[in-house]
Amino acid sequence: MGNLSYAIIGTGALGGFYGAKLQNAGSEVHFLLNSDYEQVSQNGLIIQSKDGDFMLPQVNAYNNVEKMPPCDVVIVALKTTKNYLLPQLLPPVIKDNGTILVLQNGLNIETEIAQIVKNVTIIGGLCFLCSNKVGAGHIHHLDYGQITLGEYAVNYQQMGITSRMQEICQDFENAGIKIELTEDLLLGRWKKLVWNIPYNGLSVILDATTDELMANSYTRALVEKLMLEVQLGAKSTGREIPDSFMQMMLDYTLKMKPYRTSMKIDFDEFRPLEVEAIIGNPIKKAAENNVNLPLISGLYQQLKFLDGRNSN
Amino acid sequence: MGNLSYAIIGTGALGGFYGAKLQNAGSEVHFLLNSDYEQVSQNGLIIQSKDGDFMLPQVNAYNNVEKMPPCDVVIVALKTTKNYLLPQLLPPVIKDNGTILVLQNGLNIETEIAQIVKNVTIIGGLCFLCSNKVGAGHIHHLDYGQITLGEYAVNYQQMGITSRMQEICQDFENAGIKIELTEDLLLGRWKKLVWNIPYNGLSVILDATTDELMANSYTRALVEKLMLEVQLGAKSTGREIPDSFMQMMLDYTLKMKPYRTSMKIDFDEFRPLEVEAIIGNPIKKAAENNVNLPLISGLYQQLKFLDGRNSN
Repeated sequence: MGNLSYAIIGTGALGGFYGAKLQNAGSEVHFLLNSDYEQVSQNGLIIQSKDGDFMLPQVNAYNNVEKMPPCDVVIVALKTTKNYLLPQLLPPVIKDNGTILVLQNGLNIETEIAQIVKNVTIIGGLCFLCSNKVGAGHIHHLDYGQITLGEYAVNYQQMGITSRMQEICQDFENAGIKIELTEDLLLGRWKKLVWNIPYNGLSVILDATTDELMANSYTRALVEKLMLEVQLGAKSTGREIPDSFMQMMLDYTLKMKPYRTSMKIDFDEFRPLEVEAIIGNPIKKAAENNVNLPLISGLYQQLKFLDGRNSN
Repeated sequence: MGNLSYAIIGTGALGGFYGAKLQNAGSEVHFLLNSDYEQVSQNGLIIQSKDGDFMLPQVNAYNNVEKMPPCDVVIVALKTTKNYLLPQLLPPVIKDNGTILVLQNGLNIETEIAQIVKNVTIIGGLCFLCSNKVGAGHIHHLDYGQITLGEYAVNYQQMGITSRMQEICQDFENAGIKIELTEDLLLGRWKKLVWNIPYNGLSVILDATTDELMANSYTRALVEKLMLEVQLGAKSTGREIPDSFMQMMLDYTLKMKPYRTSMKIDFDEFRPLEVEAIIGNPIKKAAENNVNLPLISGLYQQLKFLDGRNSN
């Protein structure tokens, strides 16, 4: 077992799951909680998982970052809509020369975090996870769970596979979490957006599950056109997504069970949507490189309208 | 009074209103009805109107075009979604050298009608009318009512102001209906689409009234971008819509009372949407001229999905 200590910023369906797996495998983990703090500090975490259920009756629970010890690795597992809190949350919990591991969707998040904390390594992680919080401190892991890790550097220069990535990878794999290491974080983020932008966006706008979007020839064509614009956006930042990757995403979605996307779940639960990180930032990034993404921009404007009305 | 005879194909909120006004002013009018036939043939039509209520206890009502006399002017007042019926409906009721007056929204309808009947004049009419059918043979006219008329020729060549247009205009104006004559039907149709495409489309997709679309800065910007694409489409067919016209439409919509568009009403009533005439045909027309309208195409695909699901 490695001897890295972990802080989980946001102990929900994602942060709670990965944090519990790490602790279960022997790592030192510290959990930041909000509404579930009382329950979890008294009774710990329950993980119901397709890979095997387990309970952690005792965990290090906190409701205030000032009370947490500085850790080697700080896992950011909030929704991006809460990232405005990071300037308060991160500095107290990160060791000098520590690592911030950002398990969030979207673009440009690492750039924002690099403004907040200096003398740290920032690693981005793209999670493929189906997991729900079903009660306070009670998480139901339904499927998948693998993470793609890539290290961040200014302007998303490619960093290759670093020893820091390998060290964290080791801990996660010991905990039974499949890890893929990528030499190019930005390419990894764009690739994830190939799926996230069309399906998250259209599922909210059209009140539809993934299988409905694929079964209708018009929306299926629209999904493909949106994917092509993501490819264009990636290209504007010097990253090539092959056509075969988009075809793979389409085939993969066709084979999936009917799926309600995470943005649709947020919408149905009247939570703010991750529109800026997932849709707004890619548009901005492409625009900085003089590339216009008209369909994605239309999607963005529709989602901003729906998100605004939903939060009233 | 002119001595033109009129057939109304589709005696609903629009056809019933204009037909009743014509008969009330002394014209000979023949009404084709479907579900309201029994009621109207026995009790006539009731028009409740901001310009003055009136009743026509006796009208020439038919439930079959074969029983109708051939008329000088046949007014097509169906929804475009019923236009597949026109090859059966038109030939029996139109006099040789008669006029077909198409009071429908969208593009390319005259071209389709020209395939069905020969030796006729085709005039397109763009109606600005707020009117609802509130019961069988009972129409409530809320506001507006003016019509812009333009004569059709192959490839929408400009026809100028023809004597046929003036003759019909005379009858309508005698009946208290304001008429504007346009020398360029195609330009008139594109101009109407500047309003119809963004507001009809977005009102259905976002479940929104016109005032909501205007109050939100994102959808307002999206409306403007869609209007710019309509302008592009018009330009691809050699028609110039000035920027000032689009500004006028925005100002006009801002000043309107909160308005549920006709496409939204159709959607809420589970009727098929006029997507092809209003949105599909303009896209096709522009594409024939090698102009791509990406945002309107995205709107089209979203609407086709919603329309398909709504009719199940």
